[in-house]
Amino acid sequence: MEAWKKRAHLYIKRFLGSLCQEIWKAGRDDPRKAIHSIKVGLSLTLVSLLYLLEPLFKGVGGNAVWAVMTVVVVLEFTAGATLCKGLNRGLGTLLAGSLAFLFQFIARESGKVLYAIFIGASVFFIGAISTYLRFIPNVKKNYDYGVVIFLLTFNLITISSYRVENVLKMASERLYTMAIGCGICILMSLFIFPIWSGQDLHNFSASKLEGLAKSIQACVDEYFSDREQGVGKNESMEDPIYENYKAVLDSKSIDETLALHASWEPRHTWHCNPFPLQQYVKLGAVLRHFGYTVVALHGCLQTEIQTPKSVRLLFKDPCSRLATEVSKALLELANSIRNHRQCSPEILSDHLHQALQDLDTALKSQPRLFLGSIPANMMAATKPEKHNLSSVKTEASALMSGWRSNRVSIEAERRSLRPTLSKMAITSLEFSEALPLAAFASLLVEVVAKLDLVIIEVEELGRVACFKEFEVGDDHHEMVNVVQDTSKMHISGLPSNYTAE
Amino acid sequence: MEAWKKRAHLYIKRFLGSLCQEIWKAGRDDPRKAIHSIKVGLSLTLVSLLYLLEPLFKGVGGNAVWAVMTVVVVLEFTAGATLCKGLNRGLGTLLAGSLAFLFQFIARESGKVLYAIFIGASVFFIGAISTYLRFIPNVKKNYDYGVVIFLLTFNLITISSYRVENVLKMASERLYTMAIGCGICILMSLFIFPIWSGQDLHNFSASKLEGLAKSIQACVDEYFSDREQGVGKNESMEDPIYENYKAVLDSKSIDETLALHASWEPRHTWHCNPFPLQQYVKLGAVLRHFGYTVVALHGCLQTEIQTPKSVRLLFKDPCSRLATEVSKALLELANSIRNHRQCSPEILSDHLHQALQDLDTALKSQPRLFLGSIPANMMAATKPEKHNLSSVKTEASALMSGWRSNRVSIEAERRSLRPTLSKMAITSLEFSEALPLAAFASLLVEVVAKLDLVIIEVEELGRVACFKEFEVGDDHHEMVNVVQDTSKMHISGLPSNYTAE
Repeated sequence: MEAWKKRAHLYIKRFLGSLCQEIWKAGRDDPRKAIHSIKVGLSLTLVSLLYLLEPLFKGVGGNAVWAVMTVVVVLEFTAGATLCKGLNRGLGTLLAGSLAFLFQFIARESGKVLYAIFIGASVFFIGAISTYLRFIPNVKKNYDYGVVIFLLTFNLITISSYRVENVLKMASERLYTMAIGCGICILMSLFIFPIWSGQDLHNFSASKLEGLAKSIQACVDEYFSDREQGVGKNESMEDPIYENYKAVLDSKSIDETLALHASWEPRHTWHCNPFPLQQYVKLGAVLRHFGYTVVALHGCLQTEIQTPKSVRLLFKDPCSRLATEVSKALLELANSIRNHRQCSPEILSDHLHQALQDLDTALKSQPRLFLGSIPANMMAATKPEKHNLSSVKTEASALMSGWRSNRVSIEAERRSLRPTLSKMAITSLEFSEALPLAAFASLLVEVVAKLDLVIIEVEELGRVACFKEFEVGDDHHEMVNVVQDTSKMHISGLPSNYTAE
Repeated sequence: MEAWKKRAHLYIKRFLGSLCQEIWKAGRDDPRKAIHSIKVGLSLTLVSLLYLLEPLFKGVGGNAVWAVMTVVVVLEFTAGATLCKGLNRGLGTLLAGSLAFLFQFIARESGKVLYAIFIGASVFFIGAISTYLRFIPNVKKNYDYGVVIFLLTFNLITISSYRVENVLKMASERLYTMAIGCGICILMSLFIFPIWSGQDLHNFSASKLEGLAKSIQACVDEYFSDREQGVGKNESMEDPIYENYKAVLDSKSIDETLALHASWEPRHTWHCNPFPLQQYVKLGAVLRHFGYTVVALHGCLQTEIQTPKSVRLLFKDPCSRLATEVSKALLELANSIRNHRQCSPEILSDHLHQALQDLDTALKSQPRLFLGSIPANMMAATKPEKHNLSSVKTEASALMSGWRSNRVSIEAERRSLRPTLSKMAITSLEFSEALPLAAFASLLVEVVAKLDLVIIEVEELGRVACFKEFEVGDDHHEMVNVVQDTSKMHISGLPSNYTAE
């Protein structure tokens, strides 16, 4: 018995511990959640005063419950969502009230039975029609809640009108208390620690850019790292690279919800044009497509066939530099969004194009990669040329030593001088092994091409959102942050073999 | 005046026309929407009978409005969603009622003022705590609506208890009518033309597989087609390839919502294990990752640098065959899901591995692709070897003629016998131009690797969902459908140059 008690005690303790941890985690991630909770509690207390205080109760009466109901249902996390729901509720109620009175006005004079049939029919048709309307994408997006409230109110008034004499008085009283509830909600969400959807959308865009920057850098670092790959393959879903770009991939619904709610917010229309929501959504779409390329790049790390380390290392410097430049560009874009200033396109393109050029040069200077299969006499023929090309000599020789072990067996076979298909397959082994590297490089170039689209969208965003002009010096201070932010980043210098060019 | 009238008439006509079109489109896409609308209308009429019919009204009284409210709010499109909301509503109401009575029992004896303060405080704390609970992911996912109803009911009862004497009676009456409303909703959603989330999830999985199959086939077809590319570049967002895989990319929230609602549905627990929702969600995740690779493949069609047509054509046959095999495999998987039968893994692997082998062979048989930069004397050296390899002769010669025009200028420069870096860059032009093709081929291989993961998940699905065993003959009938379904598909025969092997 004692032991059982102890175990129960332990279980309860553990359960409470994990519960507390989860509760604490939700609040730590975003303290605004706690603030919002307190705001809801406060609003409910305020609205219950309508019932508790004698003078107020005399004015409002039992209909105060509708105010409470309104506060519970309408007060949402962000100001935009609250306004959207509040205005939808108001609009739906008003429309439903008008329609219900119109119907009542038409049918009131008929007999009791006929009136009941009329009510039944109108409830059926209005119910079916408004439910069907909710499936139309445009209505669903903006007015879904409004239609529900319309249907609810219409039914309540129409049905009540059958028994209650003065429905007009009842309905207007309800509308009145509902308006009080809506008023409290709007007051709370707009003026007391307001939480703006537009701001969330803005920050989310910046953080997506940062996540992409980190994952590209990490991808390239891991591809050229000395560690054995494929170790963390099973838990690839939880690896840091995936974590960084995950938010981008599934951002569509979040983006659209935030933009929808932000469209109801008045704030951002003050200091400039209307808040450019659609531009944020467009940027989100471009970032998602950028993200898909990063996924493919990440996929290169996990394929079965891998280019040998020695060959990969030849391209390490240009690839790393390109990745660093892309990351830097993305972080600069993120910074420009965060600080509401326009980005500096010159900085972006100059370094980036240089890095791209370097990768291109590196790729072009390695045609020998695929010449390993040439018979020895041809090898000899290439040698005089190689001596003259001192700048690529180091790689070429590294490549030679790297492939020496392979070549011994190949050349042994070749000396038999009977070219067969099987030999053919062996001699060209290099190409199929270089394939993944080619894909990696190609995707990296693709990333740069997509980066261009991202830059265009961010520039457009800066223009339509009236971000402040870029000033020289802005970037210097922020670049320090950039370097600090990305502790993983390894900004490699110009590779030695390119200095001669 | 007459003209103005005419124009107004025209505008109204046009507006009504487009409205009707949109309404019609929503219904044509999914007739279940119309059925659901009628169901809602019917339920509302049924529930309003509580108020309209004298004997029923005597039993229920004015509280019938709560039944109407319940029907409006709870009756959702799918059975799962309705059950989820209905049970949440019931649970929330019961819990709130119990808690409210407990509080009332504690505080009732204190004075009027103290009691008011106690109510205010409890409303504040319960409001803040339950709002905060809604932010916890697990609660938000399953019980969000329940918490809202809990909060609503708790507040209504607690506040009412201050003025109304017999709250217990009022509350139990409301609960009673609410139960009637819930009952009608559940009856309607479970027994009259039920719409199952689980079925939707099942069909959605199959249609995602079909979409991917179509887009892979279309991608490869377009890559090797003779039409000029880049024509439809601007409207790439609307091109058919994108349309086919679009649904897969943004499927996360749909999958999760359907799975969540399906988890409340009783139906699928009858004939086997519980309906394997998590397996569908897992399959969805794998399909999304498969989709990202397809995006990258699609990206190869849109890059600036393109491998020349002549070179690409060399790989047309193996790539097309591989794509056809992948599409066939995906369609077979889709069919197996649609028909609730296990897929035939032998058929998949045999053909697929053959196609993969062919692509591999094709790639290996083309090391010459990158030998364009070898001086003429080396070219001569390779000739004896080529003569013996009759099977690859056709391509090699095609390649030669394709590159002849380029080579003229290159060799002219080479004859100067002064190897410089700039020449180096020109002679190896072929590699950087072959890069996109290499990426394309590599991604195609990657697609096959990901296909393996998809097959594993579908097989696992077939196992846990107790799909019927695969029987010989099943595939034959369905394969006919497959071919009919994919009118675009071009199932190429074995390319002539491989028959010799």
